[in-house]
Amino acid sequence: MSALAAPASCMAPVALALGLDMHALLRRLFPICRSITGDGVRETLAIVREYLPALQVHEVPSGTPVLDWTVPAEWNIREAWVKNAAGERVIDFAQHNLHVLGYSTPVRGWFSRQELEAHLYSLPDQPDLIPYRTSYYQPAWGFCLRHHDRLQLQDDYYEVCIDSTLDAAGSLTYAELLLPATAPEPDAGEALLSCHCCHPSLANDNLSGLVVAVALARQLAALPERRYAYRFVFGPGTIGSITWLARNPEAVARIRHGLVLTLLGGPGHFTYKQSRQGAAAVDAAAALMLARHAPGAEIRPWLPYGYDERQYCSPGFNLPVGCLSRTPFGEFAEYHTSADNLEFVQPAQLQESLELVLRLCQTLDQNRCYRNLLPYGEPQLGRRGLYKGVGGGTEGHDWQMALLWVLSLSDGRTPLLDVAARSGLPFELLHRAAQALAATDLLAVASPEPAA
Amino acid sequence: MSALAAPASCMAPVALALGLDMHALLRRLFPICRSITGDGVRETLAIVREYLPALQVHEVPSGTPVLDWTVPAEWNIREAWVKNAAGERVIDFAQHNLHVLGYSTPVRGWFSRQELEAHLYSLPDQPDLIPYRTSYYQPAWGFCLRHHDRLQLQDDYYEVCIDSTLDAAGSLTYAELLLPATAPEPDAGEALLSCHCCHPSLANDNLSGLVVAVALARQLAALPERRYAYRFVFGPGTIGSITWLARNPEAVARIRHGLVLTLLGGPGHFTYKQSRQGAAAVDAAAALMLARHAPGAEIRPWLPYGYDERQYCSPGFNLPVGCLSRTPFGEFAEYHTSADNLEFVQPAQLQESLELVLRLCQTLDQNRCYRNLLPYGEPQLGRRGLYKGVGGGTEGHDWQMALLWVLSLSDGRTPLLDVAARSGLPFELLHRAAQALAATDLLAVASPEPAA
Amino acid sequence: MSALAAPASCMAPVALALGLDMHALLRRLFPICRSITGDGVRETLAIVREYLPALQVHEVPSGTPVLDWTVPAEWNIREAWVKNAAGERVIDFAQHNLHVLGYSTPVRGWFSRQELEAHLYSLPDQPDLIPYRTSYYQPAWGFCLRHHDRLQLQDDYYEVCIDSTLDAAGSLTYAELLLPATAPEPDAGEALLSCHCCHPSLANDNLSGLVVAVALARQLAALPERRYAYRFVFGPGTIGSITWLARNPEAVARIRHGLVLTLLGGPGHFTYKQSRQGAAAVDAAAALMLARHAPGAEIRPWLPYGYDERQYCSPGFNLPVGCLSRTPFGEFAEYHTSADNLEFVQPAQLQESLELVLRLCQTLDQNRCYRNLLPYGEPQLGRRGLYKGVGGGTEGHDWQMALLWVLSLSDGRTPLLDVAARSGLPFELLHRAAQALAATDLLAVASPEPAA
Repeated sequence: MSALAAPASCMAPVALALGLDMHALLRRLFPICRSITGDGVRETLAIVREYLPALQVHEVPSGTPVLDWTVPAEWNIREAWVKNAAGERVIDFAQHNLHVLGYSTPVRGWFSRQELEAHLYSLPDQPDLIPYRTSYYQPAWGFCLRHHDRLQLQDDYYEVCIDSTLDAAGSLTYAELLLPATAPEPDAGEALLSCHCCHPSLANDNLSGLVVAVALARQLAALPERRYAYRFVFGPGTIGSITWLARNPEAVARIRHGLVLTLLGGPGHFTYKQSRQGAAAVDAAAALMLARHAPGAEIRPWLPYGYDERQYCSPGFNLPVGCLSRTPFGEFAEYHTSADNLEFVQPAQLQESLELVLRLCQTLDQNRCYRNLLPYGEPQLGRRGLYKGVGGGTEGHDWQMALLWVLSLSDGRTPLLDVAARSGLPFELLHRAAQALAATDLLAVASPEPAA
Repeated sequence: MSALAAPASCMAPVALALGLDMHALLRRLFPICRSITGDGVRETLAIVREYLPALQVHEVPSGTPVLDWTVPAEWNIREAWVKNAAGERVIDFAQHNLHVLGYSTPVRGWFSRQELEAHLYSLPDQPDLIPYRTSYYQPAWGFCLRHHDRLQLQDDYYEVCIDSTLDAAGSLTYAELLLPATAPEPDAGEALLSCHCCHPSLANDNLSGLVVAVALARQLAALPERRYAYRFVFGPGTIGSITWLARNPEAVARIRHGLVLTLLGGPGHFTYKQSRQGAAAVDAAAALMLARHAPGAEIRPWLPYGYDERQYCSPGFNLPVGCLSRTPFGEFAEYHTSADNLEFVQPAQLQESLELVLRLCQTLDQNRCYRNLLPYGEPQLGRRGLYKGVGGGTEGHDWQMALLWVLSLSDGRTPLLDVAARSGLPFELLHRAAQALAATDLLAVASPEPAA
Repeated sequence: MSALAAPASCMAPVALALGLDMHALLRRLFPICRSITGDGVRETLAIVREYLPALQVHEVPSGTPVLDWTVPAEWNIREAWVKNAAGERVIDFAQHNLHVLGYSTPVRGWFSRQELEAHLYSLPDQPDLIPYRTSYYQPAWGFCLRHHDRLQLQDDYYEVCIDSTLDAAGSLTYAELLLPATAPEPDAGEALLSCHCCHPSLANDNLSGLVVAVALARQLAALPERRYAYRFVFGPGTIGSITWLARNPEAVARIRHGLVLTLLGGPGHFTYKQSRQGAAAVDAAAALMLARHAPGAEIRPWLPYGYDERQYCSPGFNLPVGCLSRTPFGEFAEYHTSADNLEFVQPAQLQESLELVLRLCQTLDQNRCYRNLLPYGEPQLGRRGLYKGVGGGTEGHDWQMALLWVLSLSDGRTPLLDVAARSGLPFELLHRAAQALAATDLLAVASPEPAA
């Protein structure tokens, strides 16, 4: 493994700064049979803790009421197969854990082919791929298989075995990591990063989001300064975020920005889905970052369908949480099939995603409102050496314009993101200009929290 | 006549549900010589009362001050003609009631051709059509004729007769129908439907508006539920709406939405002219309904010119009243000529107009604000059977999305029209979704009156 | 000189109404060596006072603190030259006052060619033009010359003389003219017109702005009615407006609109740069006037770079001051070179600029909010003779529409500029309509100050 990473003291000394490192972690997690509860999730989060030792893993007993829902019975599975009349395994969970319908109830016995057919799922249009299907909240059993293989099933009777358990005394597992703020500004609140970890052997949906989140946490931990605290939530889709929301009212109240991370390892352009608020700072930052750093990226308006942003943005919470992905769910052929595999997710794609998310986090962290302390007329910048080293090139011109834009718009309630949008200058340059102006007492931070 | 209509108890048992029925009524009214006062209006409203027995006809004495205006003397006419030297009638009101200038003062005597010419109106560019001209507020007499016929007038002298009366002891006639609200929500206010009934033998302008209004009243009366009361006003243009506004300050205060109905029988796309407010609920509903159900329809901004919306939207009242027509006045060749006749107005066109206006009324009636009663996280819809019967098709997907959109945006102050605009889903589907969610106690009506 | 001008009593009887007059004044001012201080500015303003006898000239001692700045030492120059080994003047200030770097410190002596080169400025891409360069706030000396001439300098040593003075006991000179308001509306405030007068022999930048300002002042003075007082400021760039702002807090508080006038004599389309507020009345008026009267004109958003609007719009003052020019600085080849001369500025271009600025001032002066005094229904215009003389042509139709639009939108807080924008009718027509309605007691001025 690469040794390029520079982990912070609270981080384990494991490399995870590059796409190759993230892909290696993803390969390790890929074979595990995850679901919304069960040992697959536990095993996954234990591996994540190797990279994030401060990770806290929570177990919530089955039957616990969470908002309008109830934590379901814990599901585990040992084996599952279908044998033909000759006793040959024609479908076998041991071959691929997508073969079994997620949350299948246990079953054992002989079934006519017609009876079996009612429990089979395949894709006639993609006959070489195994589909991914689940039935969490309606008891059912079933098998998923390649349509080509399904057409081979010609025997009159088949023996079926699903050796699963649904344990009402079990629990739901999720994990949290909190990176505290370091900057002196008090009570800036928290930024939430959330990803789901309930899918079995699917690489893009959502091991890609998980490994990017882990690498991001390590990068943020290594930064000398964090204005916000960063809270990472790793949990099963829907029921996981609902459980977290139900158990953490105080943390919910501290959230200032949030991102759901998903589908970040495939090819295709980036897509940012706006929060329900639509004009939150995270929405503005995403628009700016994608326009500048992600050619072809797409901004989509809020839609009450998708991933855990559905829960975070439900009207009672209405948190400023967007969702970042590459090609969205349902819009690429490999989605929810056995083709969402280790080849579909590429190291370079993971790396690009990590860089964009990190940039987005940094932008929000630096998105302060400043106040021009000499707002009557322009201050004499030359006297303060702020034109020093400025050549005749474009860089020099941009730097001078950045100084003037920050001075012009810093009225104490205009966040730097708005200065960037109005000036067309890069956010990073404006941030540096604001730092330089603050260093000469021309500018002061107006409030720990931008208004927009 | 068709027997397909299902009139409500307060309605007379006369068919008027179809374009054919509306056209039959229009044919009956067409020959009557209407003006802004007089027996033609009375006769017209008496026929309307056959269809709407609850119609109240009002007489307002000439000379009554109404806002900045005064109810004019009542005009009636018995005969009007021009005879040539040979005693032949070369223009005759008995042939077509457009031949006389509306509100002509009485006149009798011989005039030189030159003197007569100053009182003639024709259309050189449309030489086969008789124009429609009036002079309500400046005393004058005159004749309208085909330009071809005018060119035949070669005698030196003509005998002229206009046997009209302008009775200062007369009155102005208008009519009102109020359909009370039926729904339990208290005090939702009223919707105003207004049309002018002062034009003589012109079919589109505005008998079409009148017959659509009559049919609409009967359709609304037959509905099991009406949140708003519906007030129909039938009166002469300008002075009629001014008179109604002057006499009904309490009704004015109850108006929540309004529509002026005019030019609804000709060919051509629909045109909706926005209220002076521009962002009233009726404007939003019209935009949505026309975009979905009236291909090629046009939305036009407020203009202080046109029909009675000029009075309803005058800045002191500023009522949310738009104007619905097909091709607007002045933009079709038949406008204000003898070609605006019974062939120009077609039953299918009337039918289409009625359906659109009814849909618009229904949309406003159902445009409630709801409150999501379980706004923290998504409620578990499956447990409540709200996914039951959902197939894999688009209809099923849209239904599920409609449920999610209504839940997501129902914060107690977002009307369903805004949900429709933001989601892109049909208003009717969202209304059904809201009803289904309300039936399972997930949603409640937030206020009888939407904010927008 | 032309005798067409009709000066007001407070104005000197000198012609200055036409482009030719303005160009004549410009030719007289062109040879003077102006800078941000010194006798060149004094001489310039003394000539301006011939045209504007009420002009007040102010002297502010060097060393005076003004906002974040200090009034610099006064600069004057008698002669400056470079002689070659043969004693021939190869660069001579007496030939063109652009030859010396503005604010050059005094110097006398022999320099090697290499030493001299470090003090020379030329334009390799425009080898026939002398550039304009200054160094106001960093002590330096230098010469500007044609690049072709520079390449001829082959001697080993040159004699250099700059006979300039930087007098710490000197002063900065600027001038002001106040035209008082005449209209009875009390306390309408002031409109600011500002131009810089610190450039030496450059015709467009900014003698054009100066002569247009002088002519404008005379035109405004000749008007029978001025709702606003008009304050003209003639001063050196940056330090002049900063000095004026520092010394005039009460006048600053009275400014309702402002324009910086610059680069108004060259060819090219008009460009209006918005104030920092962006939605001030001056911005709306400029948008409307340019759209109607200046084909090809461009509106540009606020930018914290440019002329004295940088100071007027600094966030502490944030005055509604825009900047009107033709082709903006840096976007034409002649900018800041000896090619910005008396041929580049043409009389017709000055005349066109004067007309546009005057129109803009008049529009703002007439941009009142009115209140419809009979807002319930339309008033009966015919009875008041307001339709009299209306023919069937477009003019008549526009006049009628202007009356109706003004009545419809005059709610006491909608300025006439908004009526113009919404109706699409010419501002002047709406102003006349408002006057006519006010004359028949249908309309009243709502407040001396429009809200927008």
